[in-house]
Amino acid sequence: MGAMSYQSAGVDYEPLDAFKRLCQSAAATTVGALKSHGLTEPAGIRGESAYILETPDSYLAHVEEGLGTKNLIADEMLRLTGKSYYSNIGIDTVATIVNDLITVGALPISVAMHAAVGDAAWFTDAVSADLANGFAAACRQAGAVWGGGETPALRDMVNPGTIILAGSAVGRITPKSNRITDRLQNGDAIILLASSGVHTNGLTLCRRIAQNLPNGYLTKIDDGRSFGEALLDASLIYVNFITTAQRINLPLHYAVHLTGHGWRKLMRAAGRFTYRLTELRPPPPIFNFLIRSGPVDAREAYATFNMGVGFAVFVSAADAERCIGCAKSAGYDAWVGGTVIKDGNRKAVEIIPLGLTYEADTLNLR
Amino acid sequence: MGAMSYQSAGVDYEPLDAFKRLCQSAAATTVGALKSHGLTEPAGIRGESAYILETPDSYLAHVEEGLGTKNLIADEMLRLTGKSYYSNIGIDTVATIVNDLITVGALPISVAMHAAVGDAAWFTDAVSADLANGFAAACRQAGAVWGGGETPALRDMVNPGTIILAGSAVGRITPKSNRITDRLQNGDAIILLASSGVHTNGLTLCRRIAQNLPNGYLTKIDDGRSFGEALLDASLIYVNFITTAQRINLPLHYAVHLTGHGWRKLMRAAGRFTYRLTELRPPPPIFNFLIRSGPVDAREAYATFNMGVGFAVFVSAADAERCIGCAKSAGYDAWVGGTVIKDGNRKAVEIIPLGLTYEADTLNLR
Repeated sequence: MGAMSYQSAGVDYEPLDAFKRLCQSAAATTVGALKSHGLTEPAGIRGESAYILETPDSYLAHVEEGLGTKNLIADEMLRLTGKSYYSNIGIDTVATIVNDLITVGALPISVAMHAAVGDAAWFTDAVSADLANGFAAACRQAGAVWGGGETPALRDMVNPGTIILAGSAVGRITPKSNRITDRLQNGDAIILLASSGVHTNGLTLCRRIAQNLPNGYLTKIDDGRSFGEALLDASLIYVNFITTAQRINLPLHYAVHLTGHGWRKLMRAAGRFTYRLTELRPPPPIFNFLIRSGPVDAREAYATFNMGVGFAVFVSAADAERCIGCAKSAGYDAWVGGTVIKDGNRKAVEIIPLGLTYEADTLNLR
Repeated sequence: MGAMSYQSAGVDYEPLDAFKRLCQSAAATTVGALKSHGLTEPAGIRGESAYILETPDSYLAHVEEGLGTKNLIADEMLRLTGKSYYSNIGIDTVATIVNDLITVGALPISVAMHAAVGDAAWFTDAVSADLANGFAAACRQAGAVWGGGETPALRDMVNPGTIILAGSAVGRITPKSNRITDRLQNGDAIILLASSGVHTNGLTLCRRIAQNLPNGYLTKIDDGRSFGEALLDASLIYVNFITTAQRINLPLHYAVHLTGHGWRKLMRAAGRFTYRLTELRPPPPIFNFLIRSGPVDAREAYATFNMGVGFAVFVSAADAERCIGCAKSAGYDAWVGGTVIKDGNRKAVEIIPLGLTYEADTLNLR
């Protein structure tokens, strides 16, 4: 069997990204509304991971995000083992929302759940309480209130037996100087914050890999746990890192939440830089298992999965050690992964120890 | 064939409402987070249609809402007639979000789209541009900016060929005196604002009715249009009414967006009042068609559909005519539908001309 790719697993980002661009074009016609509210839209905010609006004394932030297909794995593990992983699924849903929000320096203040089922009976299942409790625990960890939600039953749209999880967050940046804007410079340090596992990205490919394994999700991975259990480790929430960085006035030149597009996301900023990664850490065992079992080649793996890095920030080289200390004091493992380099007009991610290079044309988000 | 009900059409609100209550209980554990943000949660806001947070000089509002199954009808009409109704679908999606937001007096400032497909190819279909353009047009009408969104492809979760539409809004109340709180009093006038048709509610039952008609969505209704076309009339957006009421300092004692639960929603406020409706207007022809074709009895129809009323506000009897004038100047048809009556501890909606009564136990939202 040849190597598996995310596209061969049925996820094609081309039409998704095309529709995103179409929406951004239509959305541009709505900006005139802001004037009557006394608000302005900061230049360049379109295409960032969170939308923000400027008020006289703060920024308001808004994110809508979805969990993806991860809970299909929780459904299957429930069937196989009788164990509910829906508390972790609730955490994952909040994590994927708030980790986007904080990339602009906003702290989440309110998070809402969107939970659509095909059959309302889902909501009477025992796992529904786990979902609610996990969602609430994650809100507490993110310092946000759970401020509402929507729970429709959508017959003939959502497959019976599952649930589509998404949600939104309102955030705020105050004082305004806490906003993270693109201030990347030649020589900046790339600080990588460890992930706990796959988080919420690449799960369609993981599901495809499970289908091809004789023991499926019950296959043991290198740490002795089952594939399914490891996939369902709860995502990390990086809010405490940003809160701590703001408290010590650590200047962050940019921040990236590593989700879709894997490490290609490191070049999310609009400017033209080469992101040269020189220091890799062994990722959690789940990733080697995925590479081996797919098989997924390294180039595809780093273009799809977070490979042990859930969040990245960029700081001046002089601030690198202070940033690591900030992350560790906030409870995250972090290291200097490499350097931002100005190389004319080139834009690329280079993973030197693996000989991998992703040029700008492999990431088309704007 | 016996009369059809929303429950027999496959929508059972009991488990949905049970899960909502479970979520509200878990959400209550997150409120402590607000203190570190210098925010407070107003008493009694849980269970209202929009969540709000109090800042020193304003309220921030947050709503997450979904369209439901209405676009399945647009999909079928596209197949039958070749005509795209996805511009209206985009308007409906925004309408259902912002009409909830304004019930607390918040004006929408940012709206985000959540659009989940089963197959990414949907996003390359011609109707996707109509959806984006309709969504943008509705944001402009609501005075809000389209501030982002999420467009996942969820294989094995969403049925291929359709799209699940939802979204969120951030709103603001400023000055704080514009907040609509429950100030209902004996003798208040019930002001009903006309709808354009079914809006986004009761569509599962409408789809079931179409299945039982020999000509389905192509069946002519009384105004000579097809059933499908009439169902797909775009929802009205009531933001301009609230903006105008605020501009003339019209005291609104409560506001209700008539969605799920039909006219039972008129008793949404927490207090114990009887809402006595005495003046009905003939609803748009689509409703008589639904009643006749289901058949749907009047009691079920008014408990499910908006029956020609999309939004309601309550004002002192002395302000009733001023409120009607306000609505008309903002472009809405409106009339005094009845009176709020304090009758001991009783809570009910009475539709006198039809002899219908809904007691408090028919609406369990809190």
